[in-house]
Amino acid sequence: MTDNVKSITIIGGGLVGSLCACFLAKRGYRIKLYESREDLRKAKHQRGRSINLALSHRGRRALRSVGLEDEVLQNAIPMKGRLLHDISGATKSVIYDEHTNQCIYSVSRNLLNGILLTAAEKFPNVEVFFQSKLINISVREGTCIISNMATNETFEVQSDLIIGADGAFSKVRRFLQQIPLFQFSQTYIDHGYLELSIPPCRGYLMTSNHLHIWPRGEFMMIALPNKDDSWTVTLFMSFRRFEELDDKEKMRKFFESTFPDAIELIGEEELEKQFFAAKPSHLVSIKCSPYHFQDRALVIGDAAHAMVPFYGQGMNCGFEDCTLLDELFETHADNFKVILEKFSSLRKDDAHAICDLAMYNFIEMRDLVTKPSFYVRKVLDNILFKMFPSTWIPLYNSVSFSSIRYTVCMNNRKWQNKIIITGLLIFFLVLSILFFLWRKF
Amino acid sequence: MTDNVKSITIIGGGLVGSLCACFLAKRGYRIKLYESREDLRKAKHQRGRSINLALSHRGRRALRSVGLEDEVLQNAIPMKGRLLHDISGATKSVIYDEHTNQCIYSVSRNLLNGILLTAAEKFPNVEVFFQSKLINISVREGTCIISNMATNETFEVQSDLIIGADGAFSKVRRFLQQIPLFQFSQTYIDHGYLELSIPPCRGYLMTSNHLHIWPRGEFMMIALPNKDDSWTVTLFMSFRRFEELDDKEKMRKFFESTFPDAIELIGEEELEKQFFAAKPSHLVSIKCSPYHFQDRALVIGDAAHAMVPFYGQGMNCGFEDCTLLDELFETHADNFKVILEKFSSLRKDDAHAICDLAMYNFIEMRDLVTKPSFYVRKVLDNILFKMFPSTWIPLYNSVSFSSIRYTVCMNNRKWQNKIIITGLLIFFLVLSILFFLWRKF
Repeated sequence: MTDNVKSITIIGGGLVGSLCACFLAKRGYRIKLYESREDLRKAKHQRGRSINLALSHRGRRALRSVGLEDEVLQNAIPMKGRLLHDISGATKSVIYDEHTNQCIYSVSRNLLNGILLTAAEKFPNVEVFFQSKLINISVREGTCIISNMATNETFEVQSDLIIGADGAFSKVRRFLQQIPLFQFSQTYIDHGYLELSIPPCRGYLMTSNHLHIWPRGEFMMIALPNKDDSWTVTLFMSFRRFEELDDKEKMRKFFESTFPDAIELIGEEELEKQFFAAKPSHLVSIKCSPYHFQDRALVIGDAAHAMVPFYGQGMNCGFEDCTLLDELFETHADNFKVILEKFSSLRKDDAHAICDLAMYNFIEMRDLVTKPSFYVRKVLDNILFKMFPSTWIPLYNSVSFSSIRYTVCMNNRKWQNKIIITGLLIFFLVLSILFFLWRKF
Repeated sequence: MTDNVKSITIIGGGLVGSLCACFLAKRGYRIKLYESREDLRKAKHQRGRSINLALSHRGRRALRSVGLEDEVLQNAIPMKGRLLHDISGATKSVIYDEHTNQCIYSVSRNLLNGILLTAAEKFPNVEVFFQSKLINISVREGTCIISNMATNETFEVQSDLIIGADGAFSKVRRFLQQIPLFQFSQTYIDHGYLELSIPPCRGYLMTSNHLHIWPRGEFMMIALPNKDDSWTVTLFMSFRRFEELDDKEKMRKFFESTFPDAIELIGEEELEKQFFAAKPSHLVSIKCSPYHFQDRALVIGDAAHAMVPFYGQGMNCGFEDCTLLDELFETHADNFKVILEKFSSLRKDDAHAICDLAMYNFIEMRDLVTKPSFYVRKVLDNILFKMFPSTWIPLYNSVSFSSIRYTVCMNNRKWQNKIIITGLLIFFLVLSILFFLWRKF
């Protein structure tokens, strides 16, 4: 390593920050990564965040680039489709990809984060600091003021580039936000989420290799499998409705009438305990632009585009940020100015598109999957996908099983909708004419 | 005054903050108002903000409530319509309100702010502090940390309610923004603005009692009259275009080809000096919700809903916030919790509507006013307004010359559009039938 090797400070040692460290370390930069919490590989308590995630194509591609895909997949559980639970407890399997059987993978957030941190630390040019909180930033000078939470010491870190991978409530972004022309929006949805758990002893009652959904129109519950045969259950519901269920009796009645089969799975006593153990958490969608300041600072992952979790793309999109960034470093070497500008201009529309698609998918998951029209569309999509595999790629497949830009996925859906509607109109018109002719002659 | 009189801290001594102090002082509260800048009545230099404003119905109504309307109008210049300058220098007057001749009023920001501050200070229960900057806030405890910029002293202020009237980049709002479920967006437009000035010696060349507009499609210039016969000119143009005009020659050519009559008015030498004296400023639109936190904190005015200036409603809407707040204090007395909740729920949709209308009016001012369809619509609107004065109120009139809720103004426009389109369709259909019959027989 020569002395003119550039230095990069990464704020945030979550999934995207630690993966980004691996990518940039491979390119030889001197990396310092600061994470405000303690090392999760040593922590006794899990954090309050969603504890499992759905890894799909874009995330796998990024992990492959840093040689971690196999290790992660060995610790993940494939989910080949949705398993829908109706109100009577009857279930129906809806496969994601009937052609090539591609799956999404349920993976533990902490396990994945641990693998990424360990991989980052193996690079001699990476230093990882825990319990080190960003206090202030001078983006123009490339200076971060960091506080060590254990010792209460505060120190200054100087680097050529600051990357904020510090999540939906990013402090790095908060500094960018004060610069004129920074577009920003944060939108909370009316729904919150509460995590519950099906214990390993009853996990065998669930059909494996599926993402389970209890769609109930205005609200829904989902379950993702864990390696120990337990399932992580998440109830998504309006805060108003959560507030209504303020005692055990009301809660039990609610579950009996809407998720009767889940009571048995979770266990009546456990359900009571878990339901009232924590308050429902908020869901926020964040859009901003640009993602950078000059050649000095950049935000990636949730810091740039937090989204509601309904497409399972939050992490995958953040990992794809790292892939794109790596491609730009490959093309433009040390020209940070060009790299950051291109990242902002290339990524903005795609990130906004997946934020919007994630909002849409909530309606699909909790409501549309219960409608016959959903299945008619699914059958049509499958037939057309089989006939024109490189042209007619259904929305879910292009988002989850390809690297097609999110904006293109969204636009494909739009023209596909137009063709289907036109096709149906022509079909019914021809049918009416035939019927008319048949009656006449 | 008894000891259980509640105390209110107002952050920001601009137009809305000082008016709000007057309203609440009348109700007997103990008011402390902190303004970060020095007292503008004593300041030598004017601030960089737009120096005149268009006062209309909503603003006048609020000023009337605190007994200041007459004093302000004596210092204002009525503008009865737009005077459009075309590229040849020819002008056309478009009157705002042909029925009742209502006007909007050009008023100096500093003069108005001075009147309001002086009025506020006259109340024995109001204390105004200048050069006193908000550093930190504990909304839950009702505590503000204020720094005196002259002495560098920092002190704590405790009160029952904190009102943030601290403008588009409100610090009070920044604290609210960290509370879950706070919806927020800031949108910068691609256009910036630059202030120029027509000196009193040439002001007589301008048709008085009008808001002058040079509409040029993608950009525009406007001029508002001042009491000393000078005019404040504002050029609104994309930043890209501003950047292109990077030397005197380019700038002169641009003015010669697009605003030839303005060169004479401003003066060639003055134009050169003024154009390059300052950088164009940004224009931001801010929406958020809710405007309050519990019974402890509230944002009003630009802090709650900064808008682009094209409807001349920024100040009027902020003043109307004070009217609404006063009505709520009248009905709910000291019940701050209810007052703040009602303010948020009543004001949100209206504020969002006027933010959107202000965006729309930019297109009308710079582009639509040059189209024949604009005049057809204006004539139709005038006829229908005359026929149904309480039902068919044209958009501009309802926004500028009434207290009709902004959402209602917007919805009126929608159904009026539908009726006009349907009417025109029927008209042309009948015309075609008549023509057909005439040809046939």
